[in-house]
Amino acid sequence: MTPAGMRPADPVRWPGAATSAASFTFDVDAESAVLSADPGTALRPSVLSHQAYGPLTGLPRLLRVLARHGVRATFFVPGFTAHRHPDAVRAIADGGHEIAHHGYLHETLIGPSGPVDERTEADILDRGLDALAEVAGVRPDGYRAPMWELTHASPRLLAERGFLYDTSLMDADVPYELDAGGGASLVEIPVHWGLDDWEQYCFIPGVSGTGLIESPAKAAGMWRDEFEALRAEGGCFVLTAHPFLSGRPGRAAALEGLIEHVASCPDVWLAPLGDIARHVRSLNLSPRRLPPPPPSGHPSDDDRKGSR
Amino acid sequence: MTPAGMRPADPVRWPGAATSAASFTFDVDAESAVLSADPGTALRPSVLSHQAYGPLTGLPRLLRVLARHGVRATFFVPGFTAHRHPDAVRAIADGGHEIAHHGYLHETLIGPSGPVDERTEADILDRGLDALAEVAGVRPDGYRAPMWELTHASPRLLAERGFLYDTSLMDADVPYELDAGGGASLVEIPVHWGLDDWEQYCFIPGVSGTGLIESPAKAAGMWRDEFEALRAEGGCFVLTAHPFLSGRPGRAAALEGLIEHVASCPDVWLAPLGDIARHVRSLNLSPRRLPPPPPSGHPSDDDRKGSR
Amino acid sequence: MTPAGMRPADPVRWPGAATSAASFTFDVDAESAVLSADPGTALRPSVLSHQAYGPLTGLPRLLRVLARHGVRATFFVPGFTAHRHPDAVRAIADGGHEIAHHGYLHETLIGPSGPVDERTEADILDRGLDALAEVAGVRPDGYRAPMWELTHASPRLLAERGFLYDTSLMDADVPYELDAGGGASLVEIPVHWGLDDWEQYCFIPGVSGTGLIESPAKAAGMWRDEFEALRAEGGCFVLTAHPFLSGRPGRAAALEGLIEHVASCPDVWLAPLGDIARHVRSLNLSPRRLPPPPPSGHPSDDDRKGSR
Amino acid sequence: MTPAGMRPADPVRWPGAATSAASFTFDVDAESAVLSADPGTALRPSVLSHQAYGPLTGLPRLLRVLARHGVRATFFVPGFTAHRHPDAVRAIADGGHEIAHHGYLHETLIGPSGPVDERTEADILDRGLDALAEVAGVRPDGYRAPMWELTHASPRLLAERGFLYDTSLMDADVPYELDAGGGASLVEIPVHWGLDDWEQYCFIPGVSGTGLIESPAKAAGMWRDEFEALRAEGGCFVLTAHPFLSGRPGRAAALEGLIEHVASCPDVWLAPLGDIARHVRSLNLSPRRLPPPPPSGHPSDDDRKGSR
Repeated sequence: MTPAGMRPADPVRWPGAATSAASFTFDVDAESAVLSADPGTALRPSVLSHQAYGPLTGLPRLLRVLARHGVRATFFVPGFTAHRHPDAVRAIADGGHEIAHHGYLHETLIGPSGPVDERTEADILDRGLDALAEVAGVRPDGYRAPMWELTHASPRLLAERGFLYDTSLMDADVPYELDAGGGASLVEIPVHWGLDDWEQYCFIPGVSGTGLIESPAKAAGMWRDEFEALRAEGGCFVLTAHPFLSGRPGRAAALEGLIEHVASCPDVWLAPLGDIARHVRSLNLSPRRLPPPPPSGHPSDDDRKGSR
Repeated sequence: MTPAGMRPADPVRWPGAATSAASFTFDVDAESAVLSADPGTALRPSVLSHQAYGPLTGLPRLLRVLARHGVRATFFVPGFTAHRHPDAVRAIADGGHEIAHHGYLHETLIGPSGPVDERTEADILDRGLDALAEVAGVRPDGYRAPMWELTHASPRLLAERGFLYDTSLMDADVPYELDAGGGASLVEIPVHWGLDDWEQYCFIPGVSGTGLIESPAKAAGMWRDEFEALRAEGGCFVLTAHPFLSGRPGRAAALEGLIEHVASCPDVWLAPLGDIARHVRSLNLSPRRLPPPPPSGHPSDDDRKGSR
Repeated sequence: MTPAGMRPADPVRWPGAATSAASFTFDVDAESAVLSADPGTALRPSVLSHQAYGPLTGLPRLLRVLARHGVRATFFVPGFTAHRHPDAVRAIADGGHEIAHHGYLHETLIGPSGPVDERTEADILDRGLDALAEVAGVRPDGYRAPMWELTHASPRLLAERGFLYDTSLMDADVPYELDAGGGASLVEIPVHWGLDDWEQYCFIPGVSGTGLIESPAKAAGMWRDEFEALRAEGGCFVLTAHPFLSGRPGRAAALEGLIEHVASCPDVWLAPLGDIARHVRSLNLSPRRLPPPPPSGHPSDDDRKGSR
Repeated sequence: MTPAGMRPADPVRWPGAATSAASFTFDVDAESAVLSADPGTALRPSVLSHQAYGPLTGLPRLLRVLARHGVRATFFVPGFTAHRHPDAVRAIADGGHEIAHHGYLHETLIGPSGPVDERTEADILDRGLDALAEVAGVRPDGYRAPMWELTHASPRLLAERGFLYDTSLMDADVPYELDAGGGASLVEIPVHWGLDDWEQYCFIPGVSGTGLIESPAKAAGMWRDEFEALRAEGGCFVLTAHPFLSGRPGRAAALEGLIEHVASCPDVWLAPLGDIARHVRSLNLSPRRLPPPPPSGHPSDDDRKGSR
């Protein structure tokens, strides 16, 4: 028998005449992503300036792009970014966009020795909530785990704090209800590495990336193909971009081409994730469970471990 | 004198009017590949969801693609996948496709300190056989080693269990008989890293990949070029794809274009690997041997070791 | 409140009819970059020859390319390069180009255990100044940190030595005044990894690169797209190339296509960085500060550290 | 003063009406490259089969390609390959091609702790010479260091053994005379990582490569652009390919397109490296020296070491 939770997600009926959905999302990591990965970057002004490009230069450009096409997007803002770049965060809100939760210092919740304990995870969530409330007066509906790394405790912790949705998992092409324990659930809106600009553009020496940097033409072309394929099958296209990466002029221009195209498709419902989550909630879908950890007792001879 | 087994494979005569052969194969690794590479991934729900996408979402899509073009394929299913996703595995069989062996937990048989012992390898084979029998009622004809890593003992162990063919080696463009010791042999159907979707698409942080993700247009274009070149020379085109990777919408669309093209070539025999193996067996080819380990006694000064 | 220095850079008014600016810059690292990264390369003649290609073969070709189009560029020359390849450095000056500072042995100022101390940084600056004076009779206006790694002390040390500009930071699309402490400032002309040929072409086994080498068509196409996007927004396009990389024939040909195009745009002010810095200085912009190190006291549980 | 040996190579006058030169070269590494990098690969039959593809399948195909266009090439054959695949090596000679030296077991002469001692290097040279004499009756004129890693002793050791040329350095676009000490010299025919198929295609898990595999269309296009640029400037185009890589059908087809094009250019002298070396020797060029090791005494604070 298939374990509970391992069934495929149900197809989703979209509002009105729409037969598929799409959302542009931006993770405003700025300095938090490098400081969390390596506190030593605090002493590397060039690296800090590379990250500060996001809120200072990339974000205003992307807000102009979105405004030109009348598109509302979702911005995931670590609490640290809100504290360090409050004007940037308020500009997001002023543009009519959704602000959502992305940790405090972009803390990866699962490290080499396993997940952080629940108390640490809860404290990070609360610290992020406090920062968004303080700086932007926002109580976010949505959460995206830094590095898209949820723990098994995350759904419950999020539900306890009143979150409506999470967007960190990768097992479906459409949103679904995710069992959060105790009768609660979250709307889960899936993402994927292939629809993320980090793998295409990010190089921060000693912190992230191999040094390879792809062209915006390649990245935007691949994302457009994925959009068309999801559109044809009733899926939900969620692009994840970062202002410090996709805010660069040539990349923003390529992204604008994609945004313009998606916004021009009458059969596609283009909306912030919060709107999508509220629609999905209204469908009363039966919740699925997190992929359960496998039963223990499997052979784990280190000699057979391998990665490629 | 050339050592036995180091002669080139003989050309293969294909059935009827066919002058070359082709097969689409899918490794349904799902969670097994990451759990085997790093047991800690059991506590990473996002990684598990990335892998579960295969049986839950990618596989049904790929089965629809194959059905649209009337193409039968070969699916290599680790025993763990059969136990965790039995409905998915039964859907493969229901589609008329071949199910073959791919280890139990996708165990790499050769680790940093060398190959596993024969008893371990035999136990894994038997565990995988039991799972396929239990879940799908199948006794597989074919075997593909996880990571394509055979040991020198593998051919004999496979022959002892009645396998007809293996598909893990890389020294020819056509199938051949592989000496399995004691007068037995296996049909070997060669593969190659260049005809594998893993190198083009796979990124699982901390487990596999550098972060680079190629476009389906590039991957499918390269595979098509390789197909045409093999076709022109009477070879056997074997593509290896993974539902958790190539099952994504844009990738599946690119792959469908290739499948449609291959299926439309009247001079190409498109068949599951089992059919190809049975045909090759009927040719009574003279067996070749595994590439022998080189004689020992070579200089092995660590200072001269280098990789690039 | 946004901390001082974290405000976006102001738009820049360009001279005459120009609405944007551009500059081609070359880092003449030659052997210094590998000797600094790994002193053992002194015993690897092939690696040394790979680096010597820059001043010996690539540089003369690039000087011919620039001369054909009447373009003056800026060359960042480590002191060691001046001592080892004095004829090459004098040929740069003879071509009417700007010579600027790039360390002595291309020393990275921030290593695994943090930044070098100020005395070491100052000594390197002075050694580089001495070498450029001795070999080329030049007192440079500009500085580019090796690896673009400034320390928090760099602006003050540069200002104390009379430098007009630095070009190592990444937080804007236009130059700005950078507060150097004590009432002094430097013009900062931003750069970016995406406008650097190293990420596209560099492979030095055991020293740099993964082995991947991109095509000049891809690199030059991506740079041209970035140029057009910066041009449309009044930005300052700064390409960083290396004679040992972009001096190769096919790469120089692709770069020449880009140079020819940029030089043909009447709305673009194409100039050495020194000229651009003098123009920016004349604008009396209000200085910005280096991105400040973040306040300490953040959680730094190693278990949450992660890079991707 | 520029140190001796650091002057650029002189332009080369080509024979007859030719204004540039070209040569296709193949390193027949087969199993030697992996066994030398990691002796443990002796127990990995799949890896061995990946390498054996070269002499067994790729080489015959490439010999057919060359024969179709009447092109003679140069094959660098490690002694171990000659012993293990004697028929393949004799087929090279039978095709009218040049056979040259490439070490015995593809030993990298410079490891993590520095170069091997001269005695070891000399023994490897002699072992390789013995194997080529024994198997193919050949006394090679040319040498290519495995991994293109010469030691400072290599030129003298090669001259003492009567070699006419080496092809391992990277500081010029044309051949030159290389001072080998004691009044002797070698013709040096430069190579480059950008004209090597390894960086485009090679993936051997745990041995070489990141997993990325480029398309033959990209590789061959880049090589053709480099050929055209060298052709326009009187250079010498030397492509380095490996039968276990470029012998794959789609790659061989792309390479054949390039070979056909180069062979059709009446202004290009397409010849084996030995012919090119003999021509260059006839020009009585003044020898250049190996790039000298830099003077010691430079700062080498480990904290400033960095690679990217």
